[in-house]
Amino acid sequence: MFTLFHHPFCPRSRFVRLALGEHGLDTRLVEELVWDRREAFLALNPAGDTPVLIAEGTPAMPGPGLVAEFLDEIHGAPLGDHRLLPRAMNDRIEVRRLMSWFNDKFFEEASGPLVTERVYKRFMKPEHGGGAPSTDVLRAAKANVRYHLAYIGWLARTRNFLAGDQLTFADLAAAAHLSAIDYLGDVPWNEDDAAKAWYVRIKSRPSFRPLLNEWMAGVPASAHYIDLDF
Amino acid sequence: MFTLFHHPFCPRSRFVRLALGEHGLDTRLVEELVWDRREAFLALNPAGDTPVLIAEGTPAMPGPGLVAEFLDEIHGAPLGDHRLLPRAMNDRIEVRRLMSWFNDKFFEEASGPLVTERVYKRFMKPEHGGGAPSTDVLRAAKANVRYHLAYIGWLARTRNFLAGDQLTFADLAAAAHLSAIDYLGDVPWNEDDAAKAWYVRIKSRPSFRPLLNEWMAGVPASAHYIDLDF
Repeated sequence: MFTLFHHPFCPRSRFVRLALGEHGLDTRLVEELVWDRREAFLALNPAGDTPVLIAEGTPAMPGPGLVAEFLDEIHGAPLGDHRLLPRAMNDRIEVRRLMSWFNDKFFEEASGPLVTERVYKRFMKPEHGGGAPSTDVLRAAKANVRYHLAYIGWLARTRNFLAGDQLTFADLAAAAHLSAIDYLGDVPWNEDDAAKAWYVRIKSRPSFRPLLNEWMAGVPASAHYIDLDF
Repeated sequence: MFTLFHHPFCPRSRFVRLALGEHGLDTRLVEELVWDRREAFLALNPAGDTPVLIAEGTPAMPGPGLVAEFLDEIHGAPLGDHRLLPRAMNDRIEVRRLMSWFNDKFFEEASGPLVTERVYKRFMKPEHGGGAPSTDVLRAAKANVRYHLAYIGWLARTRNFLAGDQLTFADLAAAAHLSAIDYLGDVPWNEDDAAKAWYVRIKSRPSFRPLLNEWMAGVPASAHYIDLDF
């Protein structure tokens, strides 16, 4: 049994949830409000951010990259040819490159600031930076979404899945970050048909359903958020 | 034969150089000025940053984490018990956690801003953000160095090496980032004897020598930078 410290809008936590789901692993979810800097949580992860995965008999695992490597090493083999980190070295390089692209670069430039400004700041105290979203930050992040969406579209037109022929961690990472900001209505899907068609395929997977069924009081979801064919 | 696109002051590139050196792998170095956004380099790594490692027959490998996983998978076994990513799962988790702590968190909060402000901005054109260092950024980054140094000292007092009994990627990551800012005189070694004693051990390794022998014209090294017993 796994325990995941997460936030429903944390894009990196969503990636871990999708990865656990694709491996068929049941997980208990604990919602962590990282801005409260809870002492017991800091003891688990001195970096103080989500996600943190706890498995029996292992130390706490912070961060999406570390969890992906763990899942592949311990639970990857039963997936056979559908392994999310394929065996061939060149494929592994491309999957890891794109996984980091979305979990690090896309997060830093787009999904991180959008979620912080639009969601987290509602719940943070003013002395911790809470309050109204910064329009400058929103504008910059939304511009970056367009550039990342075009890159996803280019990959989706070139390949069957983002990193190659089969579904990998790269698809889960991209879809996790997009799903968080899609809830907020911040993905201009009409700009890229290939990206949209790829996302519809990922969004239809059973591992995605729990994300789509979670709604946050006071934060309305975009009109098409749960539509599988929008 | 490997080719590494790097910058002498890029702390993450220094990590890759140490890792290659510990594996006994010869590498051709190409100095990349990432702020020039050279087209051929962007084709190798759309993220546009260093390090990028090229090996024969593989796609370009951007970023320190990806390179570490590659080196362990392809070149780790001959190191036997001295493997930099140990075999036991719990050790792997701790090494990966600390490797990311230094290559991501320490970089973002301390070594990245210090190197950008003190070195890169000398070479960047004003329209790309070049010019005098920002004293606010320097002050914040230097405060963060103290907090990270205390954490390294705590780990070094608790364990033989930072992640456990043996030398791992975690030590190389911490030492790589410290070495870049130690050149600039930005490490208050007198604040933590355990951290200093640990660093002296890492700095004495043959893999470290190429870093210590590189000086940059116009950027003076701190008085003790090359001293193995300072």
